[in-house]
Amino acid sequence: MHIPLSQVATALDARIDGNAELEITGAAEPAQCAADQLALAMSPKYAEGLAKGQARAAILYDGASREEFGLEAALFVARPRLAMAHLSKLFDPGPQIAPGIHPSAVVDPTAKIGEDARIGPLVVISANVTIGARARIAAHASIDHGATIGDDILMHSGARVGAGVTIGDRVILHYNSVVGGDGFAFVTPKPSSVEVVRATMGAETELEHQSWTRIHTLGTVVIGNDVELGSCSCIDRGTIRATVVGNGTKIDSQVQIGHNTTIGEDCLLCGQAGVAGSVQIGDRVVLAGKVGVNDNIFIGDDVVAGGGSNIVSNVPAGRVIFGYPAIKMTTHMETYKAMRRLPRLLKDVAALKKAVPNTDKND
Amino acid sequence: MHIPLSQVATALDARIDGNAELEITGAAEPAQCAADQLALAMSPKYAEGLAKGQARAAILYDGASREEFGLEAALFVARPRLAMAHLSKLFDPGPQIAPGIHPSAVVDPTAKIGEDARIGPLVVISANVTIGARARIAAHASIDHGATIGDDILMHSGARVGAGVTIGDRVILHYNSVVGGDGFAFVTPKPSSVEVVRATMGAETELEHQSWTRIHTLGTVVIGNDVELGSCSCIDRGTIRATVVGNGTKIDSQVQIGHNTTIGEDCLLCGQAGVAGSVQIGDRVVLAGKVGVNDNIFIGDDVVAGGGSNIVSNVPAGRVIFGYPAIKMTTHMETYKAMRRLPRLLKDVAALKKAVPNTDKND
Amino acid sequence: MHIPLSQVATALDARIDGNAELEITGAAEPAQCAADQLALAMSPKYAEGLAKGQARAAILYDGASREEFGLEAALFVARPRLAMAHLSKLFDPGPQIAPGIHPSAVVDPTAKIGEDARIGPLVVISANVTIGARARIAAHASIDHGATIGDDILMHSGARVGAGVTIGDRVILHYNSVVGGDGFAFVTPKPSSVEVVRATMGAETELEHQSWTRIHTLGTVVIGNDVELGSCSCIDRGTIRATVVGNGTKIDSQVQIGHNTTIGEDCLLCGQAGVAGSVQIGDRVVLAGKVGVNDNIFIGDDVVAGGGSNIVSNVPAGRVIFGYPAIKMTTHMETYKAMRRLPRLLKDVAALKKAVPNTDKND
Repeated sequence: MHIPLSQVATALDARIDGNAELEITGAAEPAQCAADQLALAMSPKYAEGLAKGQARAAILYDGASREEFGLEAALFVARPRLAMAHLSKLFDPGPQIAPGIHPSAVVDPTAKIGEDARIGPLVVISANVTIGARARIAAHASIDHGATIGDDILMHSGARVGAGVTIGDRVILHYNSVVGGDGFAFVTPKPSSVEVVRATMGAETELEHQSWTRIHTLGTVVIGNDVELGSCSCIDRGTIRATVVGNGTKIDSQVQIGHNTTIGEDCLLCGQAGVAGSVQIGDRVVLAGKVGVNDNIFIGDDVVAGGGSNIVSNVPAGRVIFGYPAIKMTTHMETYKAMRRLPRLLKDVAALKKAVPNTDKND
Repeated sequence: MHIPLSQVATALDARIDGNAELEITGAAEPAQCAADQLALAMSPKYAEGLAKGQARAAILYDGASREEFGLEAALFVARPRLAMAHLSKLFDPGPQIAPGIHPSAVVDPTAKIGEDARIGPLVVISANVTIGARARIAAHASIDHGATIGDDILMHSGARVGAGVTIGDRVILHYNSVVGGDGFAFVTPKPSSVEVVRATMGAETELEHQSWTRIHTLGTVVIGNDVELGSCSCIDRGTIRATVVGNGTKIDSQVQIGHNTTIGEDCLLCGQAGVAGSVQIGDRVVLAGKVGVNDNIFIGDDVVAGGGSNIVSNVPAGRVIFGYPAIKMTTHMETYKAMRRLPRLLKDVAALKKAVPNTDKND
Repeated sequence: MHIPLSQVATALDARIDGNAELEITGAAEPAQCAADQLALAMSPKYAEGLAKGQARAAILYDGASREEFGLEAALFVARPRLAMAHLSKLFDPGPQIAPGIHPSAVVDPTAKIGEDARIGPLVVISANVTIGARARIAAHASIDHGATIGDDILMHSGARVGAGVTIGDRVILHYNSVVGGDGFAFVTPKPSSVEVVRATMGAETELEHQSWTRIHTLGTVVIGNDVELGSCSCIDRGTIRATVVGNGTKIDSQVQIGHNTTIGEDCLLCGQAGVAGSVQIGDRVVLAGKVGVNDNIFIGDDVVAGGGSNIVSNVPAGRVIFGYPAIKMTTHMETYKAMRRLPRLLKDVAALKKAVPNTDKND
């Protein structure tokens, strides 16, 4: 792929200085840059590497000049990270799946496959499945009966779509991800230890020995447009209604979303986050890596939860939280600093008790 | 599936009021209920939705009357959640796998397949595998040589059973779950940093640079009856003996169970829980979401661990625990409340130090 | 497999006492030992089991004698855990994959398959893939276009290797593991809530509603020699450069490694550990189970992080850390002990305030 810088500049909404006809084949960090690659030198620190590489063109930071680095051309952008998004899209060849349906795929005759869809080797598509136009489904992916999948979606190898699930357009399901596993819902004949603990906030009681009866999963999963689901991530179907993921929400690897949960639009759920069942999450919520969310709670729009937070109760819109259990981040930091002073505090109080006689009497 | 309410009432052990011959095709939340569905209105809050939906029959809460909601029939149950279990079982069609062995499956001629088993497309069954009667094995599942699988089991797509593993009856392995990966066990020629840290409780020493030698896994996994393993969950085989999961234990998605660990009967391990190697877990233990369990410890019967708890030492039977590290939940809450008062306490002690002269001398 | 004890002793670097020609077929715990198995009785506690089993030979602890346990032969080793490594290797038959390429595998004609490689049923190997000598690739594994895989590697069923990835020699990829998923990188047109929170350490601001634009992943993953990746573990490719895992590093199940991250040599990453993007990890670092590592930080050589630690900032070489957030383990223990004394401290300070009049004025 050879792309003239003028075209790159348009895609990146960049100002160009120098030879706009120079053709590039990709991008690289300055020190590793080949002569036909565009160097990513958006900060003085990165630009230092230009001397070590072969770059003839670079994206430079504000205030830098192409002459000082001996470049034939330079691009300048307002928001470097956004430029990266556009640039990377330009050069992403995407997965290589041959047009049509690979002869080794097992496609039920009742399945409807959209125009120009590409179905890779050993894919399994069950009865009454509908797949949109230009869908790309890689080797070993499977789609169970009655599922509906939108246009332009991409399923990587080993991704699983359960029966009856609905998935929107332009969705990406990464390797070995799962949409539509059964919910984890069980019940005992009489109240279980979990029910007792919740009702009593931790009191310990002797209970009859009981086994778990399965609550079967009759609901489904509905995923909007432009959603991404990372490798080995799992979304369970709802018990009766659907588990829902809104448009534009991005989910990283090894994330688990429980049954009946609703997630709004444009959220970010980072790696190993886990959301239990029947949770309501608003729009633009960010759960950093390893965040856990208790079942049956509500998280408002625009909440941001720091890495490893354990969210145990409702969170109002706009709140920034952190901790185990998660509280306002600023409160957490105040408490945490105080905690670090605890050993010193213990000494101070011991000294005070010596200095002030008879305090123990007042206990 | 059309089922008369009289039959539903029997399955749910419910009292019926009104037209017992009404036929239903499923269940739904009241507001979304179609005319041929049973509305789930087990609380006044849910019953409010009846007016918005089309339901002619509902499960109602104690004290409600079918007349007040204009229903043709109503069911009343003692324990609504248990009723849900029976009801959902009644309407679960299960996965659609055609009878017999799909021609695209690769089944070793030495494998013994039970009566009425259903083997889906592109399944791989290796040499000397035994599969029970009525087993259902979905597309892309694989069973390695010498494994034994019971009657009525269900393997979803991409589930993996390792060589020599033994699995009981009525077990469900969800999408991309793994039974029988190798244990994670390595050793260095001389004591490793981990060994030194454990022996010294955190002292930092300079150590020789060493590489890890693999301890190969010769043991297996033995899973009892009525066990469930969630999507992308993994159970490692034991080094010499077997890793064991007892009858009736339910395991959610993305749970990891280490080598040599023994888990008792009727336990619940919720999403993203992780149990290290050589752990002994009793019966009816509940590990909530994201709970971690250190290696080589003992957890007694009926222990309940709250979400995200980090269990680092033995836990006696019946204890309810929480925290990082996990302690008695009631103690955790007391300490936690005190911690929230810390910033105030620091101010109080500073004021006391001013008011009480010369306390620093006693330090 | 029948192996004379003399040969076992050589492999284990063990001293032998008694009949060196006795042949054994495997190893077992003393109480479960058959007559042709070697009992693992490396401590007095384990040796107690010898009376219950059938063992005629055992590995004994220093100071024990074979006569006292009625054994025909005994082995003595300097480091029992290391002996286990050698012994287990001796008896591990490895996975049974038939020689050659299974007729059901889909192998692109441009792929180069090394000498004596074994390709199992329904494996998919894409265009321009290179696979080393004696590689063993089990059922349902897939390798995308242009990937390069070394000699003697083992891929278990369902393991995924993405396009262009490079993997060294003797690497083991366990069931359903993933190398080369896309990085999780998105950007908003204007600063996102995450950027604001990071800049302000938790201040809450109202932001415009924005959607996420994808940063495509153009980089790759490079894995060294002798690396192991556990079941359902995932390594994301770098954005421009490669995500790197050094020689000899062992990764357990359900571990996630983010894009651009570099991990050194001979590290141990235990189950459910998660490393975000652009992290630099040194050599011989040990992350215990469920450890989380924030993006863009640096972890020096020989760091050991205790189970569930949440690492949010740079860690110097050799440090032993623990906690949420992770701090020096010894400091954590001191603070933690103090915290347990907090409820008592609150009472003491209340008593002091009563005993010392007018302290509130000084507030």
